[in-house]
Amino acid sequence: LLKGNGVPFGMLAEFEKILSKDQIKTDSDSLNIYGKDWSQYYKPNPTAILFPRSTEDVQKIVHTARKTKTALVPSGGRTGLSGAATATNKEVVVCFEKMNKILEYNQIDRTITCQAGVVTQELQNYARNHNVLFPIDFAARGTSMIGGNVATNVGGLNVIRYGLMRNWVSGLQVVTGRGDILNLNNSLVKNAAGYDFRHLFVGSEGTLGFVTEVTVNVTNPTQQRTVLILGLNNSDHVLDVYSTFRDKLPLTAFEIFTHDCLKYVIENHPELTEPLSTQYPYYILIECENPNESSVNDILSLFEICLEKSFVQDGVISQSEVQVKNFWKYRDHISESLSKYHPYKNDVSVRISKVTEFMRETNNVLKKEYPDFVVAWFGHIGDGNLHINILKPRELSMEEFIKICQRVDHLLYSTIQKFQGSVSAEHGVGLTKKPFLSFSRSPQEIELMRGIKKLFDPDLILNPGKIF
Amino acid sequence: LLKGNGVPFGMLAEFEKILSKDQIKTDSDSLNIYGKDWSQYYKPNPTAILFPRSTEDVQKIVHTARKTKTALVPSGGRTGLSGAATATNKEVVVCFEKMNKILEYNQIDRTITCQAGVVTQELQNYARNHNVLFPIDFAARGTSMIGGNVATNVGGLNVIRYGLMRNWVSGLQVVTGRGDILNLNNSLVKNAAGYDFRHLFVGSEGTLGFVTEVTVNVTNPTQQRTVLILGLNNSDHVLDVYSTFRDKLPLTAFEIFTHDCLKYVIENHPELTEPLSTQYPYYILIECENPNESSVNDILSLFEICLEKSFVQDGVISQSEVQVKNFWKYRDHISESLSKYHPYKNDVSVRISKVTEFMRETNNVLKKEYPDFVVAWFGHIGDGNLHINILKPRELSMEEFIKICQRVDHLLYSTIQKFQGSVSAEHGVGLTKKPFLSFSRSPQEIELMRGIKKLFDPDLILNPGKIF
Repeated sequence: LLKGNGVPFGMLAEFEKILSKDQIKTDSDSLNIYGKDWSQYYKPNPTAILFPRSTEDVQKIVHTARKTKTALVPSGGRTGLSGAATATNKEVVVCFEKMNKILEYNQIDRTITCQAGVVTQELQNYARNHNVLFPIDFAARGTSMIGGNVATNVGGLNVIRYGLMRNWVSGLQVVTGRGDILNLNNSLVKNAAGYDFRHLFVGSEGTLGFVTEVTVNVTNPTQQRTVLILGLNNSDHVLDVYSTFRDKLPLTAFEIFTHDCLKYVIENHPELTEPLSTQYPYYILIECENPNESSVNDILSLFEICLEKSFVQDGVISQSEVQVKNFWKYRDHISESLSKYHPYKNDVSVRISKVTEFMRETNNVLKKEYPDFVVAWFGHIGDGNLHINILKPRELSMEEFIKICQRVDHLLYSTIQKFQGSVSAEHGVGLTKKPFLSFSRSPQEIELMRGIKKLFDPDLILNPGKIF
Repeated sequence: LLKGNGVPFGMLAEFEKILSKDQIKTDSDSLNIYGKDWSQYYKPNPTAILFPRSTEDVQKIVHTARKTKTALVPSGGRTGLSGAATATNKEVVVCFEKMNKILEYNQIDRTITCQAGVVTQELQNYARNHNVLFPIDFAARGTSMIGGNVATNVGGLNVIRYGLMRNWVSGLQVVTGRGDILNLNNSLVKNAAGYDFRHLFVGSEGTLGFVTEVTVNVTNPTQQRTVLILGLNNSDHVLDVYSTFRDKLPLTAFEIFTHDCLKYVIENHPELTEPLSTQYPYYILIECENPNESSVNDILSLFEICLEKSFVQDGVISQSEVQVKNFWKYRDHISESLSKYHPYKNDVSVRISKVTEFMRETNNVLKKEYPDFVVAWFGHIGDGNLHINILKPRELSMEEFIKICQRVDHLLYSTIQKFQGSVSAEHGVGLTKKPFLSFSRSPQEIELMRGIKKLFDPDLILNPGKIF
C-alpha cells in the first residue's frame, strides 16, 4: 500500500506539466485548510492541492499519479466526520471546488446534472427555482458538495420520507484508479444490462474512483407540514408511537432526544423555553405532511390515541409554519449546543425495531462502566439511526477523555455487533471507523472489498488507508 | 471458463453425499423442465437438478461444485426472458422451489423475510393479509420467485410509482462462488460501513452468488385509482401529456400502445370493443392515485388541458373500480394477443425525454429496411421502457424470420447506443442480450465486470457463459 511517506522525486513537476499554475497550491495555509475535514482529529499534512476544472483534468491527474506512484485524496466541502477527506501522509489533495457548474435541468426526465463540486444548498436552490425539490438535506448543506454526498451516501433529515442520496442518483460520471472515465447508468430508469456500478461508487468514499459529474432526480415540492413534540416518561413506548403514526400518515421525520440534550439547547438559546409544561426524560419530534384539513384531524386523533394508551404523557402540535420552524429548533440546535462539552460522537444504526432495546442495553453498559459520564442521545428513530454523544467531564483532560472513550468504543461496537447494526450509519468509515469495520462486516466481506478496491485502483493510489 | 462440456467424472456421486435422494433429479422430464426458462430459444441439456432445502444445502452444493469443477445454474420460477436460467451445456441446475418459506413479518420494521423460492404472488398475498403492500408486480407474478426477482432486478407494472425490486430489498443472504454465506445489510435503513454489496447482487443474474434469503420492505396499501385511456393522432405530444399529468398528480402508470397492438387484443378478446369512438394510431393509459374528490377534479381538468392544447384527440376516464380493471385489459392482454404472430421481442430503454425521438428514429429505420414487417410497440413511457415486437409475416419461415431479426437487432441496438440507452431494460442480459452488452456498456466496464465475477466466483462455476 502506497502510504505517501515522503514525496516521490519530481512528482510535483509532473503535475505542473498537465495543470496551469492557478490549479496547484503548496502554500502552508492551503495545505492546512485542504488537508482536513470536520472530524478534526487528524493533523493535515498534504504535499500539494490540485484544482481540476474538468473530468479530463481529473483523468490526467490520475494518470500522472499512477506514473509517479502518488497517493491522491479527494476533497469536496470537507464536512465529513470520519476523516475520509483528510491528507495526513504527504498525499496530494484533489479539490473539486473549481468543478462547480450546474450543467442541465431536464424538465421531462426531472433530472439535474452538475459537476461534483456544486454545493448542496446551491443544488437545492436551483431545483426550487425550477419548482421542483432536491430532497437530500442536512446541517452541512451550505458547505458540503454533491460529489462528497455521493461518496458518503449522505442521509440527513429527510431519510424516512425520501431515502438516502443513493436513491436520487440517476447517473454518475467517475474517473477510476485505472484512469478510466465511466459514465454509469446515463439517467435511465430501467437498466438491466449488467452489474450496476453506480451503486458500488455511492458510499465508496473515494477509494474506487473520483466522482466528477452527478445526475440527480428531483421531485414535486413537499406539501405543508405539521410538527408535534411529545414528552415521554421512558423509552418503552417509543416504537408504539412510531408505528401508530407511521401506519396512518406519511411521516417526514420521527426524531428522538433526551432532556440531557434539550437542557443544553435551552442553556445556549435563551429565546427557547421548555416545550412542555413539565420536563420529561425523552422527547419525540414527529413531522408529517398535511395536505388537507382531514389530515390535521388525523394527526390529532393519533396523538389522542397515544395519550390514552399512555405511550406519551404530553405534547404540543404546530399551528403555523412559524411554529413548525420553532419546534425544529429544539432538535436542530442539539449538535451545536453540545459542542462546548467536547462530545465524543458516535453515529450508529440498528434495525428500527431494535432501537429502544439497543438504547436500553447501551445505557446499562455505559452507566455501569462509566457512571460519571453524561451520555446525550439523539437520533432518527425512523431510520434506526442514533447519535450517541459522551460529554467530557470538566475534571478530565482531553487526552485522558479520548483514551477512555476509545475503550467505550469497544463496548459500544460489541453491542452493535450483537444487534447486527452498523458502526457507521451515515458518516462513512474513513479513518475513524476503520478499526471497527469488522464489527459490522464479516472477514469474507472485507476481503471482497479489498479485492474490488484492487480491481478499480490497481496501484492503490486513491485515498489509501481509508475504510480498510 | 468452465463450459460444462462433458460431466466431470464421479461428480453426481459427490452431490449424492451431501443431499438426500429426493433432492436430486436426473429423469429426462425434469431435465427438460428445469433446464429452460420462458425465453424458449435454448435447448435444455442439464446433467442433474438439485433441490436445496436451506442455505447450508446451497453452501454444500457450491463447495462440492468447486471441488468437482461443476457449472451450476440457478433456477427459480424460470419466467425470465433472457435465457439466464437455462442449462444448455451439461450444467447442474440448483432449483430453489423447496426453499419456499416465508420466515418473518416484522411489523415495526415493515419487512418480510423469506427464502428465495417464495412465489411473488404468495409474498404479495402474505403482505396483503398483514394490511401492507409489497408493490413489485408483473405479469409472471404467479410463477416467478423472489430470488429471481432479485437476480434480475425485476421492474414491472408499478415502477413509475414504486421503483424497481432494488428499492425494496433491505437485506439479502447469498452464497458466493467461493462458498461463503454473506448476510448483506441486515435490514438497516442507514448503513455507511463499507461498499454496499447488496446492490451488486441485485441484477447480477446468479453470476456472483446465489440468493438464498431476502428481506423486503413493505408499505401502506395503495389508495383508490383512476384510469384514463387517451387517443392520439401521432406520438409528437406523448411527453407533453406525460409532464402535464406528472407535474400535478402522483402517477402510478403511464403506458403507451399502438393501434397495431390494440387490434390484436380486440381480435383475441371479443368481449372488448374499441375504447374510443374513433380509432387512433397511438393510445396512452394513465393511472393515478385518487385519494379524494378534489383529485378527481384535478384529473378531469388536466385531461381538458391536454384536449385544448391538442396533445390528445379523445379520451375516457374510469368511473368505478370495475372500469379501472376493464381499461387495464387493453394493455394487459397485448403480450398474449401478439404471441400467435411469433413476435421477435425487444425490451429496451432510453431516458424518458428521448422516448418519442427514439421511437420515431427506430420506426424510420425499420420501415426503410423492413417495409413488410408489422412492428407492434408498447411500453412504459414513465420509465423510458419500450417493448418492440416485430411480427412474423405469414410467408416467412420461422428460421428465416429469426435470421432477419438478428440483423434488425444490430440496427436497433446501434440506435440504442446512439441514444445512450439500455439493450435490456428489465429482462436482464442472460444469453439473449450477451452479444449486445457492448452497445450499452464500455469495454472498461465489461472488463471490470469480469474482474468482479472472478473475485466472487474464482472457479467460474456460477451460471457460466451468462451476461459476458
